[in-house]
Amino acid sequence: MSIDAVTATRAYGLAVHAGAGSLDRTLLTARVESNIRTALEAAREAGFRLLERGASSIDAVEAAITVLEDCELFNAGVGSVYTATGGHELEAALMSGRHLAAGGAVRISTVKNPIRLARRIMERGHEVLLVGDAAEAVAREFDLEEVANSYFDTPGRLAEHQGALGAAAIDREWEGNSLLPMTEYGTVGAVAADQQGDVCAGTSTGGLVNKTDGRIGDSAVLGAGTYADNNGCGISATGQGEIILRLSLAKGINDRVIMRGSSLSLAVHEAVHNELSRYGGSGGVIAITSNSEVVCEFNTKAMFRACRTSRGEVGVAIFGAGFKDGDP
Amino acid sequence: MSIDAVTATRAYGLAVHAGAGSLDRTLLTARVESNIRTALEAAREAGFRLLERGASSIDAVEAAITVLEDCELFNAGVGSVYTATGGHELEAALMSGRHLAAGGAVRISTVKNPIRLARRIMERGHEVLLVGDAAEAVAREFDLEEVANSYFDTPGRLAEHQGALGAAAIDREWEGNSLLPMTEYGTVGAVAADQQGDVCAGTSTGGLVNKTDGRIGDSAVLGAGTYADNNGCGISATGQGEIILRLSLAKGINDRVIMRGSSLSLAVHEAVHNELSRYGGSGGVIAITSNSEVVCEFNTKAMFRACRTSRGEVGVAIFGAGFKDGDP
Repeated sequence: MSIDAVTATRAYGLAVHAGAGSLDRTLLTARVESNIRTALEAAREAGFRLLERGASSIDAVEAAITVLEDCELFNAGVGSVYTATGGHELEAALMSGRHLAAGGAVRISTVKNPIRLARRIMERGHEVLLVGDAAEAVAREFDLEEVANSYFDTPGRLAEHQGALGAAAIDREWEGNSLLPMTEYGTVGAVAADQQGDVCAGTSTGGLVNKTDGRIGDSAVLGAGTYADNNGCGISATGQGEIILRLSLAKGINDRVIMRGSSLSLAVHEAVHNELSRYGGSGGVIAITSNSEVVCEFNTKAMFRACRTSRGEVGVAIFGAGFKDGDP
Repeated sequence: MSIDAVTATRAYGLAVHAGAGSLDRTLLTARVESNIRTALEAAREAGFRLLERGASSIDAVEAAITVLEDCELFNAGVGSVYTATGGHELEAALMSGRHLAAGGAVRISTVKNPIRLARRIMERGHEVLLVGDAAEAVAREFDLEEVANSYFDTPGRLAEHQGALGAAAIDREWEGNSLLPMTEYGTVGAVAADQQGDVCAGTSTGGLVNKTDGRIGDSAVLGAGTYADNNGCGISATGQGEIILRLSLAKGINDRVIMRGSSLSLAVHEAVHNELSRYGGSGGVIAITSNSEVVCEFNTKAMFRACRTSRGEVGVAIFGAGFKDGDP
């Protein structure tokens, strides 16, 4: 087999997630469940189609996360939660495993797709992590779509915001409609490996419901919610941000693979079920190696996720384990 | 030997640093050199005296870093560099290795001692990482000393700011006085292990000279510039923030110790001389284990550092290796 043939048959693929939490199966209407699966599949396919055509894992991750950001169901982009003062502060990061290039943005209030901004910050190659106005200046530099902060106002999130503020019981009407009876850790993310074997990871979130304005979570912090290293893996995590930050959860998974030679599945299993759980944290992780082994683990009741690889693996799941729903 | 005796004889100690860079020995006047050594020793002794009396490593790190923040020589606290727009934005983090508790603050403009603020954010136990006004609200909650942003204005840093802006050549007059002919990576930090074997690490900085307002460096990012884990080590790094962020340098050192069983010195050596150098980064690291093994490595010409342990190790150095100056 020639080197070209080896290159051409290199496996590629991706996984996406849209958060993990204590979703109550009995509250999940058939319509909402169908909407979730459709959105996860749409994100996955947007990324996979690019990988098929030979595009980079960076393109695939950006495309997949953009679909999830543009879906009101999830706590990222348009579906972002409210902060304590009733605004929206988004954060996102994207990292390439090829040269450990990375970009992150926090406290974003006027950029429609924070993952696109994270990518531009990475490609620009100056700062890696930018706050608010500094990040938004880069968005203007690259002509990214800007929106008023009120673009992120949605009725379901508003009800949740008011409920969490104790102002009134949440109007559960919205649950059966387009929005979702689970918002705990509604972060979205994607990990991909392309035909060149380059890994990429990205994460985007509206953060914690009613968070203090100015709180930074794990999503945009490299090594915490997002990390990518061709020699190890690409990781996107979701869950209790403060614990994931303290654990540097994503970097720990990468280091298990690189330093200890763990399989990806053991590395992710340990990080989620031993480490995260030991510190009282809930959440979940998707991860991928440069030859497109994909893994998903979570210690919550549910995690929204999907995957597809050139080897023919394909899945979309809410409950169960791995990328399969299994028994409730 | 009783358990009490073992406990009582448990080694304790700390190391401090005040940045690493390409300091030209010929530019270092005797007076400046003496000022630097005096400041490093004062910081070290402030921490060590507390450890001797049985205080926590958290107390020791806070005390040592406060001394360095209050010294105009170093790029942290009062000696912080200017941002691109002529203000000051400080950042700091503190982490305890006992329960991986941590606090970090970025974009601080009115808190005299950001390391104190980082500690309060940690002890408060809500958010881990806070930006600007959110962090400064915590400072007010704890009655920390507030200052006008102009408190951080110093003539030497102003000359440097203007020089880097190309407005004029730096007036080198200041170099022989209280300020310093090295500002590249003037971050300060401390790592300590106390009589209970608890490790703590802290880092504080004014960031990059003429940085974009809103740029976040590595210092306050857990796993990058600061990390502490009793089972591994406490680490404070200084250097090119963007590269340290991308490498999650501190967490990588901790993982080498925990996951691969590396000695502290090998773990730090690899991180600085292989990893950081491979990515074109310069900088340095101090680290400590729970039984007070202290290590310092840097790939720059100089690093300001000092250490003292209950085993009798004591040092203060600018050039050389470890905690000794050696030959130029």
